[in-house]
Amino acid sequence: MTKLIEYEEATDEVRAVYDDIRATRQTDYINNFWKALANHPPTLQRTWQAIKEVMAGPGELDPLVRELIYIAVSVTNNCNYCISSHSAAARAKGMNDAMFGELMAIIGTANMTNSLANGYKIPVDEQFNQV
Amino acid sequence: MTKLIEYEEATDEVRAVYDDIRATRQTDYINNFWKALANHPPTLQRTWQAIKEVMAGPGELDPLVRELIYIAVSVTNNCNYCISSHSAAARAKGMNDAMFGELMAIIGTANMTNSLANGYKIPVDEQFNQV
Amino acid sequence: MTKLIEYEEATDEVRAVYDDIRATRQTDYINNFWKALANHPPTLQRTWQAIKEVMAGPGELDPLVRELIYIAVSVTNNCNYCISSHSAAARAKGMNDAMFGELMAIIGTANMTNSLANGYKIPVDEQFNQV
Amino acid sequence: MTKLIEYEEATDEVRAVYDDIRATRQTDYINNFWKALANHPPTLQRTWQAIKEVMAGPGELDPLVRELIYIAVSVTNNCNYCISSHSAAARAKGMNDAMFGELMAIIGTANMTNSLANGYKIPVDEQFNQV
Amino acid sequence: MTKLIEYEEATDEVRAVYDDIRATRQTDYINNFWKALANHPPTLQRTWQAIKEVMAGPGELDPLVRELIYIAVSVTNNCNYCISSHSAAARAKGMNDAMFGELMAIIGTANMTNSLANGYKIPVDEQFNQV
Amino acid sequence: MTKLIEYEEATDEVRAVYDDIRATRQTDYINNFWKALANHPPTLQRTWQAIKEVMAGPGELDPLVRELIYIAVSVTNNCNYCISSHSAAARAKGMNDAMFGELMAIIGTANMTNSLANGYKIPVDEQFNQV
Repeated sequence: MTKLIEYEEATDEVRAVYDDIRATRQTDYINNFWKALANHPPTLQRTWQAIKEVMAGPGELDPLVRELIYIAVSVTNNCNYCISSHSAAARAKGMNDAMFGELMAIIGTANMTNSLANGYKIPVDEQFNQV
Repeated sequence: MTKLIEYEEATDEVRAVYDDIRATRQTDYINNFWKALANHPPTLQRTWQAIKEVMAGPGELDPLVRELIYIAVSVTNNCNYCISSHSAAARAKGMNDAMFGELMAIIGTANMTNSLANGYKIPVDEQFNQV
Repeated sequence: MTKLIEYEEATDEVRAVYDDIRATRQTDYINNFWKALANHPPTLQRTWQAIKEVMAGPGELDPLVRELIYIAVSVTNNCNYCISSHSAAARAKGMNDAMFGELMAIIGTANMTNSLANGYKIPVDEQFNQV
Repeated sequence: MTKLIEYEEATDEVRAVYDDIRATRQTDYINNFWKALANHPPTLQRTWQAIKEVMAGPGELDPLVRELIYIAVSVTNNCNYCISSHSAAARAKGMNDAMFGELMAIIGTANMTNSLANGYKIPVDEQFNQV
Repeated sequence: MTKLIEYEEATDEVRAVYDDIRATRQTDYINNFWKALANHPPTLQRTWQAIKEVMAGPGELDPLVRELIYIAVSVTNNCNYCISSHSAAARAKGMNDAMFGELMAIIGTANMTNSLANGYKIPVDEQFNQV
Repeated sequence: MTKLIEYEEATDEVRAVYDDIRATRQTDYINNFWKALANHPPTLQRTWQAIKEVMAGPGELDPLVRELIYIAVSVTNNCNYCISSHSAAARAKGMNDAMFGELMAIIGTANMTNSLANGYKIPVDEQFNQV
C-alpha cells in the first residue's frame, strides 16, 4: 500500500501543490490520489498541472461534459478509484441519476460496438477518413 | 475480411433495418459497420436498436456530448473504425478542431491518471463511496 | 517490421520447431507468427510448446470450442493478427457463419455488460464467491 | 456504491423485467447486476433482452460454450463481477474443475500470444484474410 | 474464490514444482499465485517454467529491469495481484522509492501518449518501420 | 486523418516546441506524433514537457531502461505508432535483437500471468501489501 503523505509531513514543494489544489477547488480536502502521488513530487506537480489545465482551464467543453468523458475512459479501463472520484466530481457539477444512467448506457453500448467492429474487421468507410 | 452486404442482396429482414437507419439518420448512406453486421441479422437488429435508443433517443445528454463520450471509449479501446466513424458523427453534430483537441487532452490525461491510480494502488476516499 | 525467418535460412534449433509445427498440424505451411518469433528462438520454442499443449493436447474442451475462446480474447484485446489467424483456424475446425455470428454477439454483449458492472461498481453476490 | 433496487420498491416497469428473469432462469434469485441496472430502467430492459437472446436463445452454440466465451472476455477485461457471476453460471451448466483449468490455460496463452503478435507487428498471412 | 493448495495436500506433481520454486528463489515461501494455479497442474508447470526462464534465466536484461517491465504490463492491465507481487519482487532486487516514482511517471506518460497516438490516428513515420 | 503541421506553416508557439524537440534530441527530424499534436498547441506543449522530463530528464533509471518500460506499456495497449517509435528510440539507445527478444518474452509472459491472476481471483499475499 502506498503511503499517503499528509500536509503536515509534506515538503514545501509538495505543500505548494496542495495549496494550489485547495485554492483551485475551493475546498480544504486533499483526496488520496494527490497524497499518494506526493511520494514522487515531480509526478505530483506535472499531474496536477495537467489536470488543472485540462479539467479546470478555459475551453469550449463544459466542466460537466469533461467529467463525463473522464468517467468514460475510467470505466473502460476499469479503474475503480477513477470511477469513484470522477463520479463524485460529476455529481458535484450537476450530474443527476438520469444522466449517469444515460452515460453508462452509452459506455456499455460503445464497448459492445467496439468489439463488433474489431471482431468483424470492418474497413473504415472512405468518407470517414476525409474528416 | 467480412463480406459487406449491400441493400440489393439483403433479405427483407435486413432491408427493414437499413430502411430504419436511413429514415432515422435522414441519409441514404449505410456505413460499413451495418453492412458487416448484416451477416448475423439478430446482431444487426439488436445493435441498431441499442444505438438508436442510446444515441438518438430522448434524454438529458446533448447528442454531441453523447458522441464525445463514445469517442472516449473508442480511443481507450483503440478501435480504429469506431474512432473514425464517431469522429465524423461528432463533426456533423458541431465538434470543431478546438473541441476535438480538448477531448483528446482529457482522454490522454485520464489514461495517464488511471494508470497512476492503479499503480499506486490508491484506496478510495470514504466520501467518494457515499455518492 | 520484424524480419520473417524462412525455413531455408533458419538455424537447426528453429527448424526443429518448424518441423514439429508441420507434423502436428499436418500442413507444410508455417504462418508468419512463427517466422517472426524465430527471431528469438527461446520464445519460439516456449510459445509453440504452450500452444501445442493448450490448443492441440488432450482435454475436456473440444478443439473448436478452444478456438472460440481464443477469438474472444483476441477480439477483446483488438489483436488483428490473432483474430485473423484464429478465425481461420476455427473455420477449418467447423465454425460456420451462424456460429461466428453468435460468437460475435456474445463477445459484444459481454463487453457491454463488463463495462456496466465496472461502472456501477456492483458488489459480487455472496453466492457467486462460494463457487 | 450504486443503490441496489429490491423487488418490493421497484416500479412496475422494473418488476416486469425481474419477473421475466425469474421465469427464464427458473429461480427466484435476482442477482445484484440487475438490481443495480434497475436505477436506469431502459438500460435494464435492453441489457436483459440482449443477455436473454444471446445467452439463452436458440442457436448453434451450446449454453455452456457460451458461458466459456463470456468468461474469456471478462478475464481479459479484468471485470471481477463478471468473472464471478459467469463462472458460477458455467458451473451450473456443467463446467468442472478440469474444464475451468483448461479454459484459464487458453485465456492465458491467448493473452501471451496477443502481445507477441502486436509487439512483433506481424503482418497477417494473405490466406487468413481470405476466410 | 479459488482454493489455494498447500504443500501438504498437494500431489507429487505439484510438490515437484513447489520444490523447484523454493530452490530457485531460495525461500520456503510459496505465494498464492502458485497455490491457485496448482488446481490445474499443467498450467502450474508451464507457467512456472516460463517465469523461471524469462525472469530468472540467463539474458542481457538485468533482473531488476525485468521486474520493471513486468510492472509496466501489470499496471496497464490493472492486475492488482501482479502489481503487488512484482512490486515486492522489484523492491527485493533493489528498487527504491525514487525508482518506483520514475517508473510510475513513465507508465502514466506512456498511457497518455498511447491514447493521443490512437485518437489522432497518427501514421507511422516511414523511418520507424525500417528498424 | 489528422493534418500533420509542418514547421513552415506552424505558429510561433508551435515552432518553439519544435525547436526545443530538435535541440533536446539533437536532430532536425520532427516525427509525426508532434506534427499531429500541433493541432492543439496546449496538448503539444504539455505532452512534450512531460516526455522531456520523464524520458530525458535526470533520474535513477537508465535512458534505455525507460524505453523498454515504454514499449511494455505500448505493446499491452496495442498502440502501433507507439511500439514503432519507441522501438526505434530503444534501438538508437543500444537495444539489440537479443534484448528485444527478451523484452517481448517478458511482456508476453506478464500478459499471460496477468490473466491467470485475474481469472483465478487470487488474493494478494499479506506480505506483498506491506511493501
